[in-house]
Amino acid sequence: MPQQRARIRSLGIVVGELPTGPFNAITDVAGVLVGHTTLIYDQPCVARTGVTAIVPRNGAIADDCVFAGFHRFNGFGEMTGIQWIDETGLLTSPIILTTTNQIGMVRDAVTEYGFLRYQYGAYYLPVVAETYDGWLNEMHGHPIQKEHVFQALDSARSGPVTEGCVGGGTGMICHDFKGGIGTSSRLVSTDSGNYTVGALVQTNYGDRKQLQINGVPVGREIGFDIVPHPWQEPPRSSSIIIIIATDAPLLPVQCKRLAQRATSGLARIGGFGHNSSGDLFLAFATGNHITEPVHGIIHLEGMLPNDAMDGLFDATVEAVEESILNALTTAETMTGYQGHTVYAIPLDLLQQVIKRYRPV
Amino acid sequence: MPQQRARIRSLGIVVGELPTGPFNAITDVAGVLVGHTTLIYDQPCVARTGVTAIVPRNGAIADDCVFAGFHRFNGFGEMTGIQWIDETGLLTSPIILTTTNQIGMVRDAVTEYGFLRYQYGAYYLPVVAETYDGWLNEMHGHPIQKEHVFQALDSARSGPVTEGCVGGGTGMICHDFKGGIGTSSRLVSTDSGNYTVGALVQTNYGDRKQLQINGVPVGREIGFDIVPHPWQEPPRSSSIIIIIATDAPLLPVQCKRLAQRATSGLARIGGFGHNSSGDLFLAFATGNHITEPVHGIIHLEGMLPNDAMDGLFDATVEAVEESILNALTTAETMTGYQGHTVYAIPLDLLQQVIKRYRPV
Amino acid sequence: MPQQRARIRSLGIVVGELPTGPFNAITDVAGVLVGHTTLIYDQPCVARTGVTAIVPRNGAIADDCVFAGFHRFNGFGEMTGIQWIDETGLLTSPIILTTTNQIGMVRDAVTEYGFLRYQYGAYYLPVVAETYDGWLNEMHGHPIQKEHVFQALDSARSGPVTEGCVGGGTGMICHDFKGGIGTSSRLVSTDSGNYTVGALVQTNYGDRKQLQINGVPVGREIGFDIVPHPWQEPPRSSSIIIIIATDAPLLPVQCKRLAQRATSGLARIGGFGHNSSGDLFLAFATGNHITEPVHGIIHLEGMLPNDAMDGLFDATVEAVEESILNALTTAETMTGYQGHTVYAIPLDLLQQVIKRYRPV
Amino acid sequence: MPQQRARIRSLGIVVGELPTGPFNAITDVAGVLVGHTTLIYDQPCVARTGVTAIVPRNGAIADDCVFAGFHRFNGFGEMTGIQWIDETGLLTSPIILTTTNQIGMVRDAVTEYGFLRYQYGAYYLPVVAETYDGWLNEMHGHPIQKEHVFQALDSARSGPVTEGCVGGGTGMICHDFKGGIGTSSRLVSTDSGNYTVGALVQTNYGDRKQLQINGVPVGREIGFDIVPHPWQEPPRSSSIIIIIATDAPLLPVQCKRLAQRATSGLARIGGFGHNSSGDLFLAFATGNHITEPVHGIIHLEGMLPNDAMDGLFDATVEAVEESILNALTTAETMTGYQGHTVYAIPLDLLQQVIKRYRPV
Repeated sequence: MPQQRARIRSLGIVVGELPTGPFNAITDVAGVLVGHTTLIYDQPCVARTGVTAIVPRNGAIADDCVFAGFHRFNGFGEMTGIQWIDETGLLTSPIILTTTNQIGMVRDAVTEYGFLRYQYGAYYLPVVAETYDGWLNEMHGHPIQKEHVFQALDSARSGPVTEGCVGGGTGMICHDFKGGIGTSSRLVSTDSGNYTVGALVQTNYGDRKQLQINGVPVGREIGFDIVPHPWQEPPRSSSIIIIIATDAPLLPVQCKRLAQRATSGLARIGGFGHNSSGDLFLAFATGNHITEPVHGIIHLEGMLPNDAMDGLFDATVEAVEESILNALTTAETMTGYQGHTVYAIPLDLLQQVIKRYRPV
Repeated sequence: MPQQRARIRSLGIVVGELPTGPFNAITDVAGVLVGHTTLIYDQPCVARTGVTAIVPRNGAIADDCVFAGFHRFNGFGEMTGIQWIDETGLLTSPIILTTTNQIGMVRDAVTEYGFLRYQYGAYYLPVVAETYDGWLNEMHGHPIQKEHVFQALDSARSGPVTEGCVGGGTGMICHDFKGGIGTSSRLVSTDSGNYTVGALVQTNYGDRKQLQINGVPVGREIGFDIVPHPWQEPPRSSSIIIIIATDAPLLPVQCKRLAQRATSGLARIGGFGHNSSGDLFLAFATGNHITEPVHGIIHLEGMLPNDAMDGLFDATVEAVEESILNALTTAETMTGYQGHTVYAIPLDLLQQVIKRYRPV
Repeated sequence: MPQQRARIRSLGIVVGELPTGPFNAITDVAGVLVGHTTLIYDQPCVARTGVTAIVPRNGAIADDCVFAGFHRFNGFGEMTGIQWIDETGLLTSPIILTTTNQIGMVRDAVTEYGFLRYQYGAYYLPVVAETYDGWLNEMHGHPIQKEHVFQALDSARSGPVTEGCVGGGTGMICHDFKGGIGTSSRLVSTDSGNYTVGALVQTNYGDRKQLQINGVPVGREIGFDIVPHPWQEPPRSSSIIIIIATDAPLLPVQCKRLAQRATSGLARIGGFGHNSSGDLFLAFATGNHITEPVHGIIHLEGMLPNDAMDGLFDATVEAVEESILNALTTAETMTGYQGHTVYAIPLDLLQQVIKRYRPV
Repeated sequence: MPQQRARIRSLGIVVGELPTGPFNAITDVAGVLVGHTTLIYDQPCVARTGVTAIVPRNGAIADDCVFAGFHRFNGFGEMTGIQWIDETGLLTSPIILTTTNQIGMVRDAVTEYGFLRYQYGAYYLPVVAETYDGWLNEMHGHPIQKEHVFQALDSARSGPVTEGCVGGGTGMICHDFKGGIGTSSRLVSTDSGNYTVGALVQTNYGDRKQLQINGVPVGREIGFDIVPHPWQEPPRSSSIIIIIATDAPLLPVQCKRLAQRATSGLARIGGFGHNSSGDLFLAFATGNHITEPVHGIIHLEGMLPNDAMDGLFDATVEAVEESILNALTTAETMTGYQGHTVYAIPLDLLQQVIKRYRPV
């Protein structure tokens, strides 16, 4: 009997206080598109992997850059393009999430895509991040080809985002359940205007026992006696990539603050940046349009007052929490490389546990 | 009727999984001493302030340095001595927590204390941190004198630590309840040895509604209708200083990782680094002894393998959580400058709320 | 016979290619004022110290903030207020340069000054930096009082800046010659407009043998047999503070890049960030006006395209070089604490050396 | 008539004061090997590119890690593996220098090489850096294959290092002359022992007019009327990668300090981190051996006292200067893609200019 998977909110479990955007997804930030290429097959190698593309500016990011800021919570991972973002606060390419072993190939493919579309100069330092899917995916089969990267970029769309075992998240494991891609958004009302904050995560981190939802110790309640452990050996290289988008007019230094707040959302679910985790966070803000080079100075819309940041901080925390949960509740049980099986979190049980811990 | 205050654990509320040290305090890390000078009087100015000293190496820190690492979660605050710690990873002075307006005087006093005790060179770049107590304390009366700093340093002791409205925490406010100083510790067993992690916090941050204990929304349940709001105007400059100590043989880069994990403990209680908060964290490790200058190279005990850091990370999260809660549950209602009153969190109500949220 | 001191350029020695501003000083950046309080007396303690104030916005910096960025080249020193600048990129106070032992008192005095002028909130996290003058100044006599800080702030003016043994630079030593305060400026023409870059330095670093001027090894040529060594014991705590100002519309992340370029100017004179040196650099840009809090977003003039930064980088290198040299050539031989004498670099000899190394 | 190229020192031009190691190369640091794969052909694409491998521990770096530290002077470039080095201070792979467009492929190839040699886990986050050779090399022909990476790794040897137009430096341009790979070393005697510091650079940065050697304005003296400009259009993406090695027992935080001092050496030659430059520096220290995981703690040899760092700082400055010059004086005039020609700096003229500027 196939699992009927669902987003956390449709299970009646609401995280946080703020309203969501219409799609409850990073695509609620105007101009942000998401596309996936998902590779699931068993020959000639066991592929359980893929590519997820987050494309700002409806694709015109090379000509109409956004401000961005990076935060490293734990460094056992790779995100390319970060030296330029740290240096200038400019995001000039799409953001790609994929698997560890092929991040280099994917990075070169993004450069080539930019070259084909924009001639010289576009996407020169693209942002590509990875988490490790080697338990379910036969990594050394190198299933991802550059066409898969192009396809994810070409297929990127606004609107609802497919979650769970798709794109870069296909083969991921989270809190010892099946993980993957998740997304969420929040609407923020400040004295300086109304803004949207969206998150998209690729979840591959965490211990079962530390998983909490709204403070309820779900992971302890759904132990390995109930849902089997995915690993027959010590787990490795678990990580989470978190991308934050907002339409607020933030400067680079403010984007960095937003990226750092992803740490707080992650902590509330039960992620503490364990040693072998690559917990790398990037936030970008579409409220200013940066086009180089120009004669004269670059016009900016302005800057959100720092006092108005609190709402965006809270929104980031909530959107990150819900994104991780969406990855968990939409991902399906998967069997892959060498017959390894990773089980999805059972939704009925999850609802029961939550109810037991909340007073009437 | 006087309040009977208590530590959170003595209320039957246990945070986390790991065992505590004998004092459940930062002083469980061998050689770490704590001393307070508390100033509470109404003439000639309304003083609700003080100085808390954390003294490693039983006071011999100038000759027998420890490794340390700093992390900034939010920067609306001051911690002196950080350039040197960022540069070399060496803590060469005691750590002092105090009030915002007098941090400079306190900093100079620590230098003078070092000079009097050790002649030239000791405590040349001392670590002094602040949070703002101007709602209860008449800051511009400048009640703290250098003798108060000396006294806190001289009185530093091992063993149980007085918490709540003492030392630097005297006039602080936390989640719109009375805050102050809190401490806690954890014992960690790793494949590379058994270690202690201790935390001490000066809590002056947070919104009522975001306060959670073990995932229970305590702040929302004990609203302003039940316990009045401390502020008659918008609150300002709320901050938290977190100091982490361990006896593990960590390198500076590892101390920095530990300091960063304080973010996760803070998030689980409900602190997200709001804009006007100075959330500055420092971790130090006594497992290596660094004495400069010497001929030849400095002998080191060694380095904890990074794979063994996870236990220390989890311990940091738990110890930070419990330290904040101890500050809240030991602090007493206080009336100060201009008649402002800040109310302590009511312990009986707290216990009731927690019970309601836990399944039988 | 009194020394006739002079700025380096008036000796016929030109550093770099770019033209200077009218004052060849940091005050060429519109709205930037400089004031000194200089304390030179022998009773009751031997004072050779002081305070230098750099005041942006003609003093209105608390209400009309500037963007700023910090860079640490070496960390054996203190600069307060940096956590806030790193966090938000906002400079909200004047910048004060002074002596090591009293930096705390000076810091508190700036806060008090702000309070007296602006009531609550102004100058809450002021920037105060120090270098060590204990060879000539009786530091533990604590000669600086808060009135001296107020006086430096009140006396800050546009126009020519007094250099050498004045203000915070009074007792400083540079490349084993007498050092002090120096300043310089450059005019930069870019495709995005014409801008001024100014530098002001407090020089207290360096070995004689590493001093170079336009690549000429002046320090080796004017050895200790010609001009005596100032130290009878190993020198200590030598440092350089470098402040960069520009009227270009830079964002915080761009200010940080400018601050980092001070490293290159320093290197060309012969400063390599030795271990006991506090080489702390701050750059600020007046081209945008930031006023918080406001309803709505903060209007910005715009942002200099990154491609136009190269001119500002080169200007920074040149202005830092010339500022250091001006400190050296304007400072006079001084005798101070315990009869220590530090000799000024002899200008005639300097000119001869430079000439010998240049082709006819 | 073929050019007779030579290292700078063999031209009678000595940079700095410290003695060199026996090879005057990064290979003077025991266990450090260097290998190149150089691709120069015209069909099917015009290849002027390659791969340079720097291999610590005689190849056993995956099992016997070294401490390392990273510094970014300017961020318009890519160096993979840096998040892990920033996080833990551990270098666990060889270091590869190559071209911009293929850095991803090269990165994946290093991982695969590690997998083939060491099975799972080795080289999981390899360090690969790039500079742009698209003026001479037909980048989009993708001439580098993974076998070329393997070959550079397999061929890495101790002893003299081939310099100039080899390996990753094959197609590079420096100060508008032909650039490439250069290396140098220094011997340092400290109170804490005698150590070697070696540098290896891939030079692709700089303006002609800013080139200086020992303070002599060589670039202005050898103008475009004498040696033609390589570019028929504005130059792009010029960068320098600097790798520093030492056998001193440095901690990660000390390696970072060493890496930062490369800035000073670069400044003295005339590199100021222009906007489109990826100036990324990495230093590693072989004096401690780090093997994970282990039971118990990791034994360390110790730590160099910070007071002994000054000698290493000076050595770094000198070795970086001489490495850049060696790249310039060993590189030969090259014609490549689309007939572009980049001219080598003429050595006879160089010697004449230097002599004119130095007194007898």
